[in-house]
Amino acid sequence: MTITHIGLLAGTLTSAAAIPQVVKSYRTRRLRDVSIWQPVLLDAGMALWLIYGVVIHDLPLIVANSFSLFCYTLLIVMKIIYREDDSSCSSDYIGSNQ
Amino acid sequence: MTITHIGLLAGTLTSAAAIPQVVKSYRTRRLRDVSIWQPVLLDAGMALWLIYGVVIHDLPLIVANSFSLFCYTLLIVMKIIYREDDSSCSSDYIGSNQ
Repeated sequence: MTITHIGLLAGTLTSAAAIPQVVKSYRTRRLRDVSIWQPVLLDAGMALWLIYGVVIHDLPLIVANSFSLFCYTLLIVMKIIYREDDSSCSSDYIGSNQ
Repeated sequence: MTITHIGLLAGTLTSAAAIPQVVKSYRTRRLRDVSIWQPVLLDAGMALWLIYGVVIHDLPLIVANSFSLFCYTLLIVMKIIYREDDSSCSSDYIGSNQ
């Protein structure tokens, strides 16, 4: 395994990390416990990582951060549009801890 | 601003992104809407980014990922120890959307 493979695997894992949160948030329509500042700061940081990756011609950085940028933007949009649902507390949601 | 500064700023932002989520989770003791797979995958990926950064001698990657690794591990621990609290749905939590 070369160092580029490690970088690509690292990028795949950190990018894939956004998927379960996006899926969970889309399914439950609840992001009450999710801080909006996390995806906002991640988006800002990943946009810079993307620039950094482009400048140093680093493929893992470019691919990973493009995908993450998309996912965390989705999360911000969901946090905003599901804001009203978050103010209620329905019983069917109890026990859904995953 | 040099490319290293962009990398350091990117690393600072993506690392700092974990802080509001850790603070929010510690305060509310609720991580019901937070998928445990997000910090788990981020930890795995960031451990590899750290190795990648060490091998290519990239300071921004090393510093950023060490800090994030610590924060997301905290989040995993909180997700586990606050699991019982998550099964209830108290009224004092209503409207706490931030």
